[in-house]
Amino acid sequence: MYKNRNNRKELSLENIIYGRNSVLELLKAGKRTVNKLMVSQTARGSVVTEIISLAKQKCIAVHTVPPEKLDRFSEKSQGIAVEVSPTEYIELEDLIKQSKSSPKSLLVILDGIEDPHNLGAIIRNCVVFGANGVIIPKWRAAGVNETVSKASVGAVEHISISKVANINQAIDLLKENNFWIVGAENGGQSLEDSDLSFPLAIIIGSEGFGLHSLTKRCCDFLISIPQKNAISSLNASCACAVILYEIYKKRK
Amino acid sequence: MYKNRNNRKELSLENIIYGRNSVLELLKAGKRTVNKLMVSQTARGSVVTEIISLAKQKCIAVHTVPPEKLDRFSEKSQGIAVEVSPTEYIELEDLIKQSKSSPKSLLVILDGIEDPHNLGAIIRNCVVFGANGVIIPKWRAAGVNETVSKASVGAVEHISISKVANINQAIDLLKENNFWIVGAENGGQSLEDSDLSFPLAIIIGSEGFGLHSLTKRCCDFLISIPQKNAISSLNASCACAVILYEIYKKRK
Repeated sequence: MYKNRNNRKELSLENIIYGRNSVLELLKAGKRTVNKLMVSQTARGSVVTEIISLAKQKCIAVHTVPPEKLDRFSEKSQGIAVEVSPTEYIELEDLIKQSKSSPKSLLVILDGIEDPHNLGAIIRNCVVFGANGVIIPKWRAAGVNETVSKASVGAVEHISISKVANINQAIDLLKENNFWIVGAENGGQSLEDSDLSFPLAIIIGSEGFGLHSLTKRCCDFLISIPQKNAISSLNASCACAVILYEIYKKRK
Repeated sequence: MYKNRNNRKELSLENIIYGRNSVLELLKAGKRTVNKLMVSQTARGSVVTEIISLAKQKCIAVHTVPPEKLDRFSEKSQGIAVEVSPTEYIELEDLIKQSKSSPKSLLVILDGIEDPHNLGAIIRNCVVFGANGVIIPKWRAAGVNETVSKASVGAVEHISISKVANINQAIDLLKENNFWIVGAENGGQSLEDSDLSFPLAIIIGSEGFGLHSLTKRCCDFLISIPQKNAISSLNASCACAVILYEIYKKRK
């Protein structure tokens, strides 16, 4: 599971995933090592039955527990939780290799997203519109914990995520591998009119401050979303959704 | 300010708005009655100066206060807060009248959005892509409070919001006024290929359950966002962003 003790420190420490849809998606994806499934004595319904039958198929131990035990993890457990191994991040080199094997590579770099709900929503966008992976910084940003997993409604199980010490070094490596680096920023060229057919790494800036100036300088070009009203701006996850939607449409 | 005492009960009780961008947008919009501006003794910077000078122009009392006072409202006050009158909702009839005067009417109906961050993000989408207003239900849904205002980064000051007792009755009134009612739902006709040139009211369903079945039956048609990967779905605010972006593009 772990490469070495040092690596272990960098993995997320959260190892309980709860909620019916999140657990169902996690079991379907089959990417994470599930230690056990916990089902409340009072949980009923077709999704619960589906989850238990999937767990049994996969030889995962099913524990029936008092409802209070799950309430301890979260009031929103919906009577279902699993204990999993910590989030497994992929090495950037491996993510690049994986992406390059896809005909239309698309990666998303997050330049300091701090809100776990935004991170979860962005991961959903990436899965829905077929990005190959997400690159997040190791420091001063949200990592993939249980709140993110829950906000992603299980999408986190369907995408490769790489955590890097230095975003700018990651960008250099991507450039060496023929990725075009595109920053999302007001004042950039129009998203609609941009040629987005090459292998791309799209950078989404942080909630409060957008792209760091150093990151911006590393971009091959900047794109902006056409707005009717410039008095306001989009939330980071909404901006990401619009950009990935447009790329998906253009590449279809 | 209030029509009557009954109406007052339905207004939001939160009346502190904090954070530099939120306060700046609120002052610029000039829609809300601001009772006073509070600035921390330690707040510095060009945005703070701009806020103070705007407040003075508008004859709003500026109080310099100890930082602890603002910390009581929120750790994220950034040294700036205003006390405002409660959120003023618009009557649905007035919203319809207002929208019909615009050449391409567009309203967004929220069918039970509960997360204030999602509501804030959706309001930002509506302002950015030029919707005429937002319709929210009175019960079992997030109202416009200070968390929503903060999440909207002040966008809430730039759009009309109507709170209705019954979404289905609101839909009937919209239909009488020649609005097409369009629900966002997987399995609907493709967003890309839909004619969205008429006066529209787009319905966004709740985070967990999508559109209510009764609401769905009231729709003239359903639209869905093309997805590469159906294993996941978009967050409600991200789906709303993509739909409003596409409508804005088509109508340009």
